[in-house]
Amino acid sequence: MTGLTVALDAMGGDLGPQATVPAAVQALSQFPSLKITLVGDQSQITEQLITLNLASDTSVHEPRLSIMHCDHVIASDTKPSSALRHGAGSSMRTALELVAAGQADACVSAGNTGALMALSRYILKLQPGIDRPALVTSMPSLNGQPFWLLDLGANVGIDADTLFQFAVMGAVLAEQQLGRPAKVALLNIGEEAIKGNDLVRQCAHLLQASDAVHYVGFVEGDRLYHGDADVIVCDGFVGNVALKTSEGVASLFINRFKRSLQGSKIKQLIAKWLFSDLMLQLNELNPDQYNGASLLGLRGIVVKSHGRADTQALSQAISEAVYEVKRQIPDKISGRLEAVLLERHY
Amino acid sequence: MTGLTVALDAMGGDLGPQATVPAAVQALSQFPSLKITLVGDQSQITEQLITLNLASDTSVHEPRLSIMHCDHVIASDTKPSSALRHGAGSSMRTALELVAAGQADACVSAGNTGALMALSRYILKLQPGIDRPALVTSMPSLNGQPFWLLDLGANVGIDADTLFQFAVMGAVLAEQQLGRPAKVALLNIGEEAIKGNDLVRQCAHLLQASDAVHYVGFVEGDRLYHGDADVIVCDGFVGNVALKTSEGVASLFINRFKRSLQGSKIKQLIAKWLFSDLMLQLNELNPDQYNGASLLGLRGIVVKSHGRADTQALSQAISEAVYEVKRQIPDKISGRLEAVLLERHY
Repeated sequence: MTGLTVALDAMGGDLGPQATVPAAVQALSQFPSLKITLVGDQSQITEQLITLNLASDTSVHEPRLSIMHCDHVIASDTKPSSALRHGAGSSMRTALELVAAGQADACVSAGNTGALMALSRYILKLQPGIDRPALVTSMPSLNGQPFWLLDLGANVGIDADTLFQFAVMGAVLAEQQLGRPAKVALLNIGEEAIKGNDLVRQCAHLLQASDAVHYVGFVEGDRLYHGDADVIVCDGFVGNVALKTSEGVASLFINRFKRSLQGSKIKQLIAKWLFSDLMLQLNELNPDQYNGASLLGLRGIVVKSHGRADTQALSQAISEAVYEVKRQIPDKISGRLEAVLLERHY
Repeated sequence: MTGLTVALDAMGGDLGPQATVPAAVQALSQFPSLKITLVGDQSQITEQLITLNLASDTSVHEPRLSIMHCDHVIASDTKPSSALRHGAGSSMRTALELVAAGQADACVSAGNTGALMALSRYILKLQPGIDRPALVTSMPSLNGQPFWLLDLGANVGIDADTLFQFAVMGAVLAEQQLGRPAKVALLNIGEEAIKGNDLVRQCAHLLQASDAVHYVGFVEGDRLYHGDADVIVCDGFVGNVALKTSEGVASLFINRFKRSLQGSKIKQLIAKWLFSDLMLQLNELNPDQYNGASLLGLRGIVVKSHGRADTQALSQAISEAVYEVKRQIPDKISGRLEAVLLERHY
């Protein structure tokens, strides 16, 4: 690959250019063939670049960085419908348009999730054979391997066919990283086939009947992190609750751990000695560590970062975009979906 | 109250009489007015009582304990439908029948959850105004107060009216313990009113329109444990995933905490000395600590214990049953439901 370009919504997220611009610079140092288009307010972006000694008032000194000016920013509380109607000229929409026009290979944004999903679908369109895009992220498991969880909230109220498509998309993404067939499971409230709701049971039948994914059965919430499966599939409401509840419990633990050390330097030192490994492990469950959720099922690559992402986390999201471009994930998804169609025809 | 009787399914749970019998004895010492009927295999129960010096081969020496012999046990993998058809004479069903006949004030079982729910509904019947029973448990929150989460898996695929009934039942249970109106929230995937699925949005309208519960809005998974609400309501699939995912993350943390101390007695001693408070706090999130989920909405009191519950956890479940008998929870739920009916009529 001679070079690839990421369009970065420089205005998205709680910190805006203060975080996105340093993250872009960090990503450039990591990937020598990467170019980044910073999409957003020219003066704010330039200000940050000057701080980093990468620009003067009149020009950017780093040839792999460019700025595309936009006046407009989509606010974090803008409704998706309003983003669709009034989003023209916004940094988020412009970044997506660069991908649609072939001027960028992927879009990264830490902005409003609902708006990003609606605009992505409108600007980039769905891949053939896909009814809904899905939001997916990889997470740490107990056995040290990552696993992929989807959908994380891009959709609610889907049917079994759509859930099946999510399973296919998740498997393709996971297999690129694992280098082997991915074990795919459905998140359910019981391991026995009789349990769960109609959606899950119907999708289980579809998955059992298909050779396109290596289906291994149901997984319950308490074994989500046990590494029993490489890909765990559920509807967006359930996935979002599972992900956010995990974050809630993790921060509760970290909070209590820190609080028990408060006010005592000696305790802090001893804790550091006793639990340095543990601290590293706890941090694995820190949302920033697995930052960069992908929107799958679109004719283009879109990576969503946490709104509160810092430089490190945003740079992680850019890495995810680079990875998906290199692995040509949308093409691979198309290929697998064609196999499913053939399978159902013959 | 002159005395109350709990019918304990002595055969339920992974450990059977080995855990249930000592738990019963422990509960008796805690509640001087409590009597317990141990329902199950007479010889196995007697064997445990002899070990505890509370029985000889021919008689039980503790007047507050009695045994009701049953030959049959419902296995942990029995389907609810099969439990309904073939459950006659089982320890679980017999314990429920004692409640239905007025010979016991509550039933406690650590047996098969699906079977217990199906049999409870069949034997005890639903309260007027209730479409489905709900499984609820109280859990620890960050601010030190407990909160109640329901439904935990008794139902999937419910409508907004049923979810509203869950809110009312949860509020009644919580208010008895809190001694003040309970703040009730719906678990959702976004705090804004536009987010979520139809079920949650429709139920929000019902709750907003009612004076029977103090509705405070939506709560997301990451704030489940923040104590923003006293009662958090969701459908059974979502509630089960939230609860089990929390257990999964908690056990993952505890596991890593213990592993980081493994192989070093000195580390273990220092950790015990420095972090005894923390250990206690971490243990709060241990499922056994909040053991005793209640089935609400029935014409009788039924408490479900974890299948893997030990003596301590089972005794906790018996305490929950005693509490609900003393507070006459089913009557209080009926009263509140009548208020809702009046409200809707006038």
